[in-house]
Amino acid sequence: MAQEQAADDEAERGTVVTPSAEFPPLAPDERAALRRIGDRWRGARRPDELPVDPTLGRNGRRPAPSRFGRLAPIEMFTVEEPDELVATEPAQLPGSRLGRGLTRLRRVLFGPPLRSSAVLYERMRKLIALPILSSDLLSSVAYGPEAMLTVLVLAGGGALGLSLPLAAVLVVLMIAVGLSYRQTIPAYPHGAGSYIVASDNLGATPGLAAAAGLMLDYVLTVSVSVAAGVSAVTSALPGLTPATMPLGVLVIALLLAGNLRGVRTAGNIFVLPTYAFVVAVLAVLVVGYLRAAGRGFAPVPPPPVPAVEGLGLLLVLRAFASGAVSMTGIEAVSNAIPAFRPTEWRNARTTLGWMVAMLVVLFAGLIVLIHLDGLAPRPDQTLLSQLGRVTFPTGPWYALLQAATALILLLAANTAYNDFPRLLFFMARGGHAPRRFLHMGDRLEFTNGLVTLSVAAGGIFVAFGGHTKALIPLYAVGVFLAFTLSQAGMVVHWRRHRGPGWRRRLVINAVGASMSGVVLLTAAFSKFTEGAWVVVIAVPLLVLLFRRIHRHYAALDRALALHPPPAAGSAAPAGPAEGEELPQEVRHLVIVPVARLNRASLRALAYAVSLGRPTLAVHIAPEEAEADRFREQWRAWGDHVRLETIVSPYRAVIGPLAHYLEALHAARAELTLTVIVPEVVLRRRWHRPLHSRAEQRLRSALGALPGVVVTSVPVHICD
Amino acid sequence: MAQEQAADDEAERGTVVTPSAEFPPLAPDERAALRRIGDRWRGARRPDELPVDPTLGRNGRRPAPSRFGRLAPIEMFTVEEPDELVATEPAQLPGSRLGRGLTRLRRVLFGPPLRSSAVLYERMRKLIALPILSSDLLSSVAYGPEAMLTVLVLAGGGALGLSLPLAAVLVVLMIAVGLSYRQTIPAYPHGAGSYIVASDNLGATPGLAAAAGLMLDYVLTVSVSVAAGVSAVTSALPGLTPATMPLGVLVIALLLAGNLRGVRTAGNIFVLPTYAFVVAVLAVLVVGYLRAAGRGFAPVPPPPVPAVEGLGLLLVLRAFASGAVSMTGIEAVSNAIPAFRPTEWRNARTTLGWMVAMLVVLFAGLIVLIHLDGLAPRPDQTLLSQLGRVTFPTGPWYALLQAATALILLLAANTAYNDFPRLLFFMARGGHAPRRFLHMGDRLEFTNGLVTLSVAAGGIFVAFGGHTKALIPLYAVGVFLAFTLSQAGMVVHWRRHRGPGWRRRLVINAVGASMSGVVLLTAAFSKFTEGAWVVVIAVPLLVLLFRRIHRHYAALDRALALHPPPAAGSAAPAGPAEGEELPQEVRHLVIVPVARLNRASLRALAYAVSLGRPTLAVHIAPEEAEADRFREQWRAWGDHVRLETIVSPYRAVIGPLAHYLEALHAARAELTLTVIVPEVVLRRRWHRPLHSRAEQRLRSALGALPGVVVTSVPVHICD
Repeated sequence: MAQEQAADDEAERGTVVTPSAEFPPLAPDERAALRRIGDRWRGARRPDELPVDPTLGRNGRRPAPSRFGRLAPIEMFTVEEPDELVATEPAQLPGSRLGRGLTRLRRVLFGPPLRSSAVLYERMRKLIALPILSSDLLSSVAYGPEAMLTVLVLAGGGALGLSLPLAAVLVVLMIAVGLSYRQTIPAYPHGAGSYIVASDNLGATPGLAAAAGLMLDYVLTVSVSVAAGVSAVTSALPGLTPATMPLGVLVIALLLAGNLRGVRTAGNIFVLPTYAFVVAVLAVLVVGYLRAAGRGFAPVPPPPVPAVEGLGLLLVLRAFASGAVSMTGIEAVSNAIPAFRPTEWRNARTTLGWMVAMLVVLFAGLIVLIHLDGLAPRPDQTLLSQLGRVTFPTGPWYALLQAATALILLLAANTAYNDFPRLLFFMARGGHAPRRFLHMGDRLEFTNGLVTLSVAAGGIFVAFGGHTKALIPLYAVGVFLAFTLSQAGMVVHWRRHRGPGWRRRLVINAVGASMSGVVLLTAAFSKFTEGAWVVVIAVPLLVLLFRRIHRHYAALDRALALHPPPAAGSAAPAGPAEGEELPQEVRHLVIVPVARLNRASLRALAYAVSLGRPTLAVHIAPEEAEADRFREQWRAWGDHVRLETIVSPYRAVIGPLAHYLEALHAARAELTLTVIVPEVVLRRRWHRPLHSRAEQRLRSALGALPGVVVTSVPVHICD
Repeated sequence: MAQEQAADDEAERGTVVTPSAEFPPLAPDERAALRRIGDRWRGARRPDELPVDPTLGRNGRRPAPSRFGRLAPIEMFTVEEPDELVATEPAQLPGSRLGRGLTRLRRVLFGPPLRSSAVLYERMRKLIALPILSSDLLSSVAYGPEAMLTVLVLAGGGALGLSLPLAAVLVVLMIAVGLSYRQTIPAYPHGAGSYIVASDNLGATPGLAAAAGLMLDYVLTVSVSVAAGVSAVTSALPGLTPATMPLGVLVIALLLAGNLRGVRTAGNIFVLPTYAFVVAVLAVLVVGYLRAAGRGFAPVPPPPVPAVEGLGLLLVLRAFASGAVSMTGIEAVSNAIPAFRPTEWRNARTTLGWMVAMLVVLFAGLIVLIHLDGLAPRPDQTLLSQLGRVTFPTGPWYALLQAATALILLLAANTAYNDFPRLLFFMARGGHAPRRFLHMGDRLEFTNGLVTLSVAAGGIFVAFGGHTKALIPLYAVGVFLAFTLSQAGMVVHWRRHRGPGWRRRLVINAVGASMSGVVLLTAAFSKFTEGAWVVVIAVPLLVLLFRRIHRHYAALDRALALHPPPAAGSAAPAGPAEGEELPQEVRHLVIVPVARLNRASLRALAYAVSLGRPTLAVHIAPEEAEADRFREQWRAWGDHVRLETIVSPYRAVIGPLAHYLEALHAARAELTLTVIVPEVVLRRRWHRPLHSRAEQRLRSALGALPGVVVTSVPVHICD
């Protein structure tokens, strides 16, 4: 099947989500260059035999205790293949006491680390994936119909009847977008997010625009749904109202912690509330329709509401755009394909089908039932709550419905926690986001993405003081931008690939794209002044940022890429020291800056001389007299190394030394200057302010110089 | 003369204030050890001839432009002796654009840098030193008499007559302390501050207690006198009252800036106000006594004031202690001896004499005139202002007196700016304060001390909201603690040294010490609840801190001190790698951690192989598959270096690598492991967040390991 073929291609290109994404393979021309460089190395002197056995395992000697009191950790490695060691779990622990303590704390909070090979087992079963990925989508059923009717009722109670045709259009839209994504998933079986699909087919900028829209949506989802959940809690327990901010931050911290524990653990938390909400709403629907059937499905007339606005096209469009909020979250599955168990795309597609089916049933069912029961939006109570009261006049069922609603609103944020880090992973793999988003943490989770999302959402929550309702209009624009671009991308995809049945697929995606586009424009225009303008400004700015990031990484990759070495004859002897040197071409000059003659500087000098290369010691003196005194000490020592003293009459040390090295390098550009700096390593952190950071300042000053290599010879002070 | 002999001894011991204080000479036993270590180096292989001329000057080649666009700065050095270069002024400029800009700004603000040899010319003439060092002492005349009378008047108007005997006692005290310091100065001609004198004769703890007392006094002086000056300004211009805080901070910043320009420049600012104040008060005295002579020196009876307290001993003691505030600042000269022109101690002694004479004349003259004119303290006007009004009923003279008073109060802080950094310099030389206080800045000023004083005083000023009158009671305790300890130290000094006339000198110092001691106890007890308790707590805490600092430096010096090497036969081959190694004993193993094969890692590999020592490359792979792929690339390159791959199934890199190196080192403890880390150097600061700080984290993790040397091979990315 063409789709499976595409899946294999993708896997071969190495775009699967694995921890190895941080180590991309070499491009073919780089490989060729590597081979040619290697050929020229043959002349290099073969170094001596190693003085220790690098595999450790075959070494019979008992490990001696190290200077810093811990046992040498030979047991931390096991030998598996001849040239390969495997680090055991204790080898993860950092060396410092503070670091070890923090790591232990992290493990208590988030669980023991998971092996890279567990990445498959950490994936989601469909029954787990459904609640994780659908909490956002399904929770929007709790406010989507209401959003639509709230706009309609502005034109009077009579206009509420328009909800049925609008709902029908929305259902068509849901099905179209759902079908559209259903087709996308097998075509991009390793991640069918809007960013990937739009980048692949429409180019980088549309892809980045889709990503920017989704990122805004994810951050807003978290802060808005946390605010909604917290306000549901504080409505029930008004005593907690002053604690709104800490409560919200706590919820975000809990979401972060749950997700840092990994996908599987996080899933378990979300299964129950989501299913409870679905069951509760289904119960409302079943009981409601039974009661309606009892009166022959005769609609109750809505209460008379005076019209505030005329029933114009703009109002209808606004109502439509507001109702479309119910669809946010539908894209969750396509980004999360790599989190499914194999065969990933098939399981994802099935899950998407279930999700859309549930959405359509719940959404349409609620709209029709509201119409039949003649309910109108009221400021003091949500429509879902009104329905609940009508349906369950007595018993605990109403309370259960409300509790499930509050919980799913709170947990809707989790969908964003699932997708946002993956989106950043894909972007980082494409070079459009910082590479640290590629890194998988202890629990195979994308730590940096999770933390970024939490900080951004928490920041917005705090900045708005927990009142994030004003942000709801910002939702739809970003999401529908992503929908439109993704599906338009699929149209291009089918035109290019023309597999079996491509015309039918193209038509489906085209319908989805145009309907999404209409909603996008409607939302952007009708809600522009309500806040949508923020998105209209933020998306281009984000795209610009991503492009700048990409430009830097591209320049970096070009600079670091392997090029074949110049032909042997044309190798200019005075070429830049940072070319693709061969070992036999490196010309050494070892420089030892010496401030005083003590154990630290003598160690550095001994190390320098032991390298067996031309060595020069440099002393910077603040005045003539001190220079004379130092030279005298140097002669007392025996003058084993050529000493150059530089009198710095203005008492600066770093500047003159750096300029001196630069001058030496300018005199013979092919020289590699190795500056050997004795570095006092202190054990106690509070002793550091007692020492000038001269070594560090020297290193950062020398780092900018070409052809200068800096070597730190540590001297450990045990006090 | 014995005193001059002592001066020469001191100079030989190298305790003169010079920029070379940062480079203390070797102790005799260290020198001997150095010689013996040098003897054992003779066996080491003599390195080859240097590939460049280290003196640059004889090198005929034109400097090539460096990669970063500046001309190579060979012209920045001049050759003076065979092995010595002298850095010219441009060689001070740091390499980065930001750094160069900041340096230029600093030079515009504070003037061009001064050569170390200018240290003599930057010293003070007596006529300059007098205003600089006496502004604190003389300004206290403006509030000292008032402080005493304010206490006395509590016992009714009649008690004011007691001011004459009390003033007589104070004058005796002033003369005694003055004579006492006069003797101290030639005995300690390179700095006769209480810290030095008390440390030298009484031991470290009394010396530190004196230093702590003085430091508190200096910080309080600045914040209190700035507050007094600002409130004088805001009284005159009430519109400025809301700007009290910024004004005070501005004054402190100006004082700092003036002092950063150096002593000579700062002095010029202070000459006029101080002399103006002296002249104004002298005019008040002359005119006042002429008027009193007109009425036959018959005292005007003071206004009847009802008594609030009984006239007890405690009240008299409190009045005495309050009047003694006039003496704060008398110690200024003794700390500042090194800032005088040669012969330093003689000039300093003369200046001290003038100062005390002026103090006695002004203080006694004011007290007697106040008595003759029958003035009593009033809450709405200072006594000096009342005297001014009585003396100059018309004309601009009263306004001039007030202006001079306000100005000298504001500038009294400058005495602290002169002495505080010097005190820290002496303490740092003794290892009781961070060594950075030894460093002389561009203008031969003690930058770090000046900044520390400004930050501390500014912090107190801001913390108290500019209302620092509450701090005045804290003054006397710290100062008189220092006086007492210093003079008691001199008593011990004379008993030990017994030069000509030692008995007379001992008696003078003993009188000074006991009188100061009485004032100290009086002040501490009578003002304990008013705030003196803060000093009673702070001084021991500071002494403890200084002792902890000293202990650290002592341990550091012990650890770094040169010891003679062990005899050739007893050198254990598996000894610790950080002993006093000889070059011929260093056993190398070069380790190159390689994450990917690119230009950076190939440079590091080429550098490593070019060292010609046993070399091992290490790759940390997150999973088995990646390890296989990397090994395959390695073979494609040609397998020029032995590669060890470590699979880190939990994806950590730093931890396993550090533990692996530790294990290698444990296997052969005499090995020196050189870890060669390729380091990407970025040009733009905003690109840094796009890169993991893996190199830096690796370096800090490896820094703690024994026997591991870290070498950074930079690769410059020009984008």
